[in-house]
This record gives sequence, C-alpha cells and structure tokens, in this order.
Amino acid sequence: MKDYTAPLADMRFILREIAPLSEVNELPGCGDVTPEVADAILIEAGKFATGVLSPLNQVGDREGARWKDGEVTTAPGWRDAYAGYTEAGWNALSCDVTHGGQGAPRLVSALVEEIWNGANVSFTLCPMLTHGAIEALELTGSEAQKSTYLPKLISGEWAGTMLLTEPQAGSDLAAVRTRAVPRGDGAYLLEGQKIFITYGEHDLTSNIVHLVLGRTPDAPPGVKGISLFVVPKFLVNPDGSLGERNDVRCVSLEHKLGIHASPTAVLALGDRGGCVGWLVGQENRGIEYMFVMMNAARYAVGLQGIGLSELAYQQALWYARERVQGSELGSKSREGVAIIRHPDVRRMLLLMKSQTEAMRAVASVTAAAIDTARCHPDADRRAASQAFVDLMIPIVKGCSTENSVDVASLGIQVFGGMGYAEETGAAQIFRDARITPIYEGTTGIQAADLMGRKVARDGGATIRRVIADMRTVQAELEAAGSPETSAIAGRLRDGIAALDAAVDFVLSTYARDIRRASVGAVPFLMLFGIVAGGWQMARSALVAHRHVAAGRGDGFLRAKLATARFYADHVLTRAGGLSQQVVGGAEGALAIEDENF
Amino acid sequence: MKDYTAPLADMRFILREIAPLSEVNELPGCGDVTPEVADAILIEAGKFATGVLSPLNQVGDREGARWKDGEVTTAPGWRDAYAGYTEAGWNALSCDVTHGGQGAPRLVSALVEEIWNGANVSFTLCPMLTHGAIEALELTGSEAQKSTYLPKLISGEWAGTMLLTEPQAGSDLAAVRTRAVPRGDGAYLLEGQKIFITYGEHDLTSNIVHLVLGRTPDAPPGVKGISLFVVPKFLVNPDGSLGERNDVRCVSLEHKLGIHASPTAVLALGDRGGCVGWLVGQENRGIEYMFVMMNAARYAVGLQGIGLSELAYQQALWYARERVQGSELGSKSREGVAIIRHPDVRRMLLLMKSQTEAMRAVASVTAAAIDTARCHPDADRRAASQAFVDLMIPIVKGCSTENSVDVASLGIQVFGGMGYAEETGAAQIFRDARITPIYEGTTGIQAADLMGRKVARDGGATIRRVIADMRTVQAELEAAGSPETSAIAGRLRDGIAALDAAVDFVLSTYARDIRRASVGAVPFLMLFGIVAGGWQMARSALVAHRHVAAGRGDGFLRAKLATARFYADHVLTRAGGLSQQVVGGAEGALAIEDENF
Repeated sequence: MKDYTAPLADMRFILREIAPLSEVNELPGCGDVTPEVADAILIEAGKFATGVLSPLNQVGDREGARWKDGEVTTAPGWRDAYAGYTEAGWNALSCDVTHGGQGAPRLVSALVEEIWNGANVSFTLCPMLTHGAIEALELTGSEAQKSTYLPKLISGEWAGTMLLTEPQAGSDLAAVRTRAVPRGDGAYLLEGQKIFITYGEHDLTSNIVHLVLGRTPDAPPGVKGISLFVVPKFLVNPDGSLGERNDVRCVSLEHKLGIHASPTAVLALGDRGGCVGWLVGQENRGIEYMFVMMNAARYAVGLQGIGLSELAYQQALWYARERVQGSELGSKSREGVAIIRHPDVRRMLLLMKSQTEAMRAVASVTAAAIDTARCHPDADRRAASQAFVDLMIPIVKGCSTENSVDVASLGIQVFGGMGYAEETGAAQIFRDARITPIYEGTTGIQAADLMGRKVARDGGATIRRVIADMRTVQAELEAAGSPETSAIAGRLRDGIAALDAAVDFVLSTYARDIRRASVGAVPFLMLFGIVAGGWQMARSALVAHRHVAAGRGDGFLRAKLATARFYADHVLTRAGGLSQQVVGGAEGALAIEDENF
Repeated sequence: MKDYTAPLADMRFILREIAPLSEVNELPGCGDVTPEVADAILIEAGKFATGVLSPLNQVGDREGARWKDGEVTTAPGWRDAYAGYTEAGWNALSCDVTHGGQGAPRLVSALVEEIWNGANVSFTLCPMLTHGAIEALELTGSEAQKSTYLPKLISGEWAGTMLLTEPQAGSDLAAVRTRAVPRGDGAYLLEGQKIFITYGEHDLTSNIVHLVLGRTPDAPPGVKGISLFVVPKFLVNPDGSLGERNDVRCVSLEHKLGIHASPTAVLALGDRGGCVGWLVGQENRGIEYMFVMMNAARYAVGLQGIGLSELAYQQALWYARERVQGSELGSKSREGVAIIRHPDVRRMLLLMKSQTEAMRAVASVTAAAIDTARCHPDADRRAASQAFVDLMIPIVKGCSTENSVDVASLGIQVFGGMGYAEETGAAQIFRDARITPIYEGTTGIQAADLMGRKVARDGGATIRRVIADMRTVQAELEAAGSPETSAIAGRLRDGIAALDAAVDFVLSTYARDIRRASVGAVPFLMLFGIVAGGWQMARSALVAHRHVAAGRGDGFLRAKLATARFYADHVLTRAGGLSQQVVGGAEGALAIEDENF
C-alpha cells in the first residue's frame, strides 16, 4: 500500500471558500485557530498521518489485536504511535479548554480527524471512542466526575468507550438488560454482558473509562428506564492514582471482516460480583445522554467514510498512473499506456474523487454549523444551526459510509486482479469500510432518524430551508453562463426537484402510513445525500468558475470544475430514480407475505 | 452459516414458463432431458449441494488451499467431495456425448451450475475451468488430442485450466510473452510465467491439463501472434497412463480477499528447460480459440454471481426471520418482532431477491438460446440465436457479478453487526463475490465488448430486435389491466425508452468518438442489464398474473408478482439516470487533465 497523504489542497479550498474558517473565527471563543494556524495544524497532521499512522495500517490488519487471558495486545507499533499521538497533543485538539483541551473549532478538528481516518481507521477508533466518553461526561457528569476523568481522557492518558450493545439489544436499546444495583454508598454494582465494544480492552492506556447503559432495580421498562454509568477499568483513588482492578473483563474479541487492529470486545460486567460504577447525570435519562454522544459519534463515523474514500482514491490513482495495460483508445498507436488513459478507468476514478470531495464539503459545512450552534451569541442562530446539524448528521454518517463501500469497491476494480490480492491493500480498505454503514446506527437507523425526527417532526421546515439555499446556488450557477456551469445547474435543478417531490411525499405520508413511508427511508437518505453533495459541488464549481473566468485558474480549480461536472452527470442523475423509489416504491414490499419471501 | 438450499420453485417456474424446456426438447438431440428428468436432476443436485458442498464452504474459507514445496493441498473434505461429485457423473452433465458426456441442454446444466455456485463457489471453480479446457479441445483439438484428454476431463478424473494472464498481460492479452519453441518432433518447449491461474495446482485429480497462450519464435507481434498449447502436468503415455512430470510448477499461491479454498497459482513454465506442450489448432489463432472458451467461461462466471446472490439472500432471509429486534412500526404494541417485519429490512431482502430472480431469468433465456444456436436445424435461427447469446453474455457476466457484490453487501447489512463478524458467513459471501466482476474480463472489459462488438458493430440490429421483444411484453402487460401489471408496464416503458436513447447515442457516437462513448460503457451495460432483468420480470409477472386472475394463484405466484413490482419500482427506476450517464456523462472525464486528478 502506498502511504496516505493528506488532501491539503482540497481542505484549504474548503476552509477558504466552502465553509470559511474566517466566519467561524468571528464566533466568540473560536478566534484562536485562524486560517494560518489551521494550515499549520493540517500540515503537521498530514506529516504524522503519513509518517506514523499510515505505515501501521497494513501491519495492523495483518497482525490484528490479540486476546490472551482477558488482556488485549495491540499490533506491533501501536503503543508507540499512540504515545506519539497523545504527546503531540492531538487527542486534546477539539476538546474544551476548561479541562485541558485546545478548543479547536469542529470545522478544523473534523478535517484533522478525516486525515487520521484516511491514514489508519483502526487506530483512530480509539480516540474517537474516547471523545464520545468525554462528551458524555462534559454534558452531564458531576463536577467530581469531570475533574476525575476529563483531564486524563482529554490528554489521552486514559481511553474511553461506550458500552451499549448486548446480544439481544442492538439497534433496539430498549432491550438493554444490564443491571445496576445501588450499593448504598452512592456507587452501583453492575451485572451484564456487553458485546461489540470498540477498544473495550487494550494496552494503549493505563486506564479505560467505560460509559455503560444499564437499568436500576425499579426502572420502568423500555428506553425510559435506562441510566448511564461510568465504570473505570481501574478504580481511581481520591488523589487521582489508580486503585483496584474493577470487575469488567474482556471475555473475547470478535473475528471480523476488517478493522482487525481495532479490538472489538465482549465485556463481562460483574462476573465476580464486583463491577463498581457510578451514575452519570440523572437516573433513567441514559438514552437521552447517549444520543448526544451518539450524534457526535455518528458524525465521526461519517469522517471515517470520507477518510477511507480518500485513501481508496489515492491508492487507485497511484495504480492507474503506474500500471501500463492496453493502448490509447481511438489512437492508431499500439503503444502501451497507463490505465488512467482508459475512459472507464477515468470514470471510476472520478466517481471516487467526486463523491469523496462532495461528502467532505457536506461534512465541513455541517462542522461549521456545529461551531455556530455551540458558539453563536444569538439564540435563534444557534437553534437554526443546531436544526441544520441535526438534519445533516444522518447524511454525513449514512451517505459517507455507504459511499465508502462503493468507493473502496471501485478501488479494487481499478486494481483489477491485483486488487483482489491482499498485498496491494485495496482489499483491506474494502473490508475496513464495510463496518461503517453498520456501527453507531445502521444506514436504516440513520434513515429512520432522518425521515421521522429530522423531516416529518418539524413539518419539513428545516429541509425546506436547505432546499431554498440549494435553489439560490442553482440560480447563481445558471447565471454564470458557461457551458459547464449551465450543465451543472441543469442537473442540480433536476436533483432538487426530485428531492422536493420526495419531501412532499414524506410529509404527506409519514404520519398517516409510517410503514409505506419507511420502505423509502434509505432511498430518501441517499437522495438527500446526493443532492446535498451536488449542492456543495455546485458551490465549488461556482468558485472555481469565477477564478478561472478571471484568469486565476490553476490545475486544482480546473479539476474541481471537471469533477463537479462529472458528479452532476454521474451522481446527481441518480436522484430521479431514488425519488421514484421513495414516492412509489412501497407496494411490493408491503404486499409480499412474510412466509413467501 | 445456514446450509444453502437449491431454489427449486423458481427454477421450475423458469423451465416451465420463462425459458420453456419443452421448446428446447424439440431441438434435434435435445430431447432426452425432459422436464421430468430435469426436475429429478435439479432435486439430486440440490441434495448434493446441501449435503456435501455447502457444509465445506466455511471450512474451505477458513482453512484455504495450502502450498508447500510446489504442491497444493486443498482444504479438509475437498478431495472426498470432488470424488463424490465426479462419481455421481455431475462433471459430465453438460458435455457432448461423443466423449462420454451426458449432453444435457445448457438450459438445465446452467441451473445445476448455479446450484453448485450457491453451495460453494470455490469448489465449483475447478469443474468450471475444466469445462473451459474441454470446450477448447472440442473446438479445435486434433482427434488424437481429443481422445487423449477429453474422456478424462469430461469424467473429471483430470482437471483443466486456462493459462492466460502474465504479470504484464492482464486485460491486454496482446502483451503475452510466454515463448513456445518447436522441438522438432511436433512438440514445443514452453518458457514463461503465468499468474492468477485458478486451480493451477491442486490435489483433487491425478492430472491437470493446462491450456496455455504463448508465442512461437516467428509469430507476429500483438494478438495475432498468439497460439494455444496443451500442457499436461503429467505427460500422457500412448496407452493413456501417466508418464513423466512436466516442467510446469506452482511457485506460489495468491493470498486473496476471498475464494480461499480455490488455489490461485503462479505457474512457472520451463524453469528447468523441459516444459513440453503441443499446439492446439492452428498457429497464431490462439486468441480466437480462447475467446470461444472465454465466452463460455464468462457465462459461467455470471452463474457464480447468481449463485452467490441466492446464497446471500437465503442467509439474510433466515436471519431476518430469526432475529427479534424492535417492535412493529405503526403498531401500538411494544412487543419484539422479527426484523423481517421492518420496512427497510423488507426493502433490502426484496432488492436481493428481485435482482437474483431477474438475473436467473436472463441467464436462463440466454442458456436456451445457446441450445438453439447449437442445435436448431435452421441456419438463420442458429445465427439469430447466436447473435442474441453474444449480446447477452456481457450482461449475464457483468450485471450478475456486479449485482452479487451489492447483494452480498446488503446481506451483511441485514445481519447488522453480526454480519461483520466472520462467524455468520455473510462476510465470506461478500469477500467471495468481489472477484466475480474482475476475472474472465472485468466489468469494464465486458462493457467495451458489449458497446463495441455487440452493439456498434452490427449497427444495433440485434439489440433493436431485443428492444422490440421488450415492447411486446410491455404492451401485453399493459393490456392485462390489473394495478400491478399496469404499474410494472409503466416502469418497463420508461426503462425501455431510457435504453433506446442510450442505444441511439452509442450508434451515433461510437465510430465517431470512441472515447466519448466509452466513458458510458459500464453505465450502458448496467442499463441494458437492468432493463433486460425488468423484461424477464415483466414476463414472469404476466404469467403470475394470469394464474392468479384465473384463481390458480399460490404463495409463490403472489410473491413473484410482488417481487416483479418491487423490481420495477426499485431497480428499473435506475434506468433513467444510467441513460443520462451514457448520453451526457463524458464531459468531465475527458476534460480533467491526467496530472490534476
């Protein structure tokens, strides 16, 4: 595998033109990381990614994390890399300054996180989960909990996890059974089994802080009886030093399709009767807290999708430039050419490139809105930004990850037979990517969230505002008047119309016939994602067009125009079919009897 | 993994209604395998598949084939299974009776082969390659070669292979370098290295008959200087017994993403100067012969795609019925339900089911045409059928295999987190399927073949005839007048129009601007495949509708109608976008400069 390099040119373009960092800098408390500082951060992140994380990606896949007698050893080189990562302060980049974080805007830290994911997604899962635990404790932990855990989680000295899933409780957390019985001294004794716990056990840190969903003895059934507990692997003494080993143990690791270096643990809580935990926030509000964490985690998984797509693209592009096979189509010469010359290979590369750039832009615009929702002095602006963020998170998570599987598959296809051999690394990206549409809520769960909570619940108010913004861009693009901009504008217009029709259907159907509407939930998510990507690519094209028209066009900007054009012609053109699937696709799925499948 | 079971109900439906075996039986020499005989064959094949091949599928993946000192050991149980397979006569089923075959129509043997692939694709690759060798020898071998090799290849006592690929010659066989120098006694000494050789070395048979592409000393450059040679692993004495070990040796096996039990060999020919081979057919006509074999092999890889899709569907369906998670959407009850009740799971299952059935019908109609092209007494009918077969093979190969990757991916998604754990087997199907769009010509190669040789070359004559047939079905369906048939007819009409527009574009552009046309080659292939599938599903719906309307509807027929409806709404609706990609999708891919990707 060729080492990953950070896509700095596109990231700079985004911070300058698409989700301007200068605007985020104007928000209270968001001024420190100026464009110059951000650029230095991205360059340094790129160096660490290329020099340290990327070279460990294939060895991590090959060696995996190993379980023995309850202990988990990470792959060779992993501990040193993690030490380097925390020592350089990377773990604290996005965290609140109150407990030692660096307070970088999400807009910047998201791009940095994409870089980590591109270089080594298995590695990046550890800090990702730690950040979930940090958010939960920041949100609702007591002052004592915050001062005990946050500084060390933020520095990365300790890692954090999320313990949600149980064998009978996957997508449906209402089925959680783990019991938490008060011990009388403010602590609880937990008992239960948790599965699919990412970095549930490992040797990267001296302690692991588990955040656990469980039920107190008198809790009501269902989601309203679930509480959140903090369960450290080692109890923490009042002076902050580590005490007794807690009774939470790793029983086994899953043997998975990919992300082999990320240990996915089965954890037994209280097998010996001594799993001690403390309530976080109020009793029975665990799901509510978990959803806050989960939204951040879902966004972060979206960044995995983008990072993996970028990695797959870089590998395929490298191979397409190296591999000589066949001669130039349409030429009389029979001389061999690099396969990048073949129209079908260009199509595959541009599918990879354009969808990756589209999703990066969508995620970045969402990140800027996360910053606005957190920091804007005006409450209405905060609320409007939060509504936009809530609407977009299922897209960032659902579409980026679904795309990453397709993009990684195209990557294998560009490599041909060599892509099927594990040595090139193309197959690993495909295997690694396949988890992303599953964890932190499957694409089906994202789609249900989008259709129900984010579109139907507010009567379409937020998505209609987004569609209006899309129309403004489309009109500007049409007015720009070049053949490229007009062509892109035309495709965007059709895409918006397709989305609009689907929104009409959702609003008229969801409350009345939720089953009918829900057959189209995933097509609706993909439709919105594709058109949102088209919207951002159209904005990019507009910027590129203006520069090129003013004689300031360079290779990057000309490529951006061509890429936006390709996206419009090959990706936005899927919108019409998806809209038909949403609006008129329920009949067969509802008609077929269960026993006749 | 739950054991695979042959989809007999759908296969019977096909042989009765969609590609009637009774019509094939009327062809000279095709009367022996009547519908009753075919049914008995399919039942027996199903038993062998479920009882013997399917249980070896996961162990084969886990253990793989092992290389040691040039010898390859297949996975535990493999040798017994192969012995059982040949002893029962399965290897001879489709072969010509002249040398011991059973002469079953391709229509029947294709369904049997789909069953083998569904049960265990890694196993089935061995007989598939043997059949390629058989076809080459039948086509052009001398009488002596035929009598030496064919009886034992047909019985399965020996296996066959195809040695095409070299490190510098993958999709482009013009680059083949293997040298073949006459020894003076009619034999040749070969020297070269061949890679990616499926079952290039193994312990299932006492001999392996390699068919090798190479160049004689005075051969012209390019594809017109390539000859075909037969190179047995063990030389064959005049009495048919095995002689000296030939100098063709397995240097290593590839470490692959999937099909672990199928050994993919690197073969060194003549490293010790003694690799003996004999010319097959005429000098310098090797590519021509190879293409005949390859067409058969491409069709066979299409059957792998269908078999794997069926397997993925069966696994997902089983899990969707077993797994209880969440409650019924739209119901007040909070009781847990099997996930098959969830609209999005139904959507996924029907995407899997409908595309599998569509491709099975397309492949079967093509198989019936293969029989007609071989056996019909009228030369014009033979030619017309052959033209149809030639047109459809890129579809059967390209679309079935691309679909199988998507279908296997959906299978993982239905399993959720459990699908990502290797133990369930869903991930294996995904890994195994990923090779199918690559070998025997990538999807890009299939698409180039379709657009150039099969559509542009005859001025669209064959595809226009097919489109006319589609229109007839669409009119019948519209006339049937039920809401389902009208809905399906409407979608088919739109699909045909989309295909027609793309054909117009290809015919007007290909000769004039091959690069512009070729950007859309794969979208064109997928478009034609989707509409061809819709055509066959429409025929199926028409049959089902007539039975149901006449009061003879059963669960299978009601499901067929619902499945056809779903296909029309969720798959045929992609046609419009694909057509736009073909007709108007070249701009960006041609505009972007190589260095600016």
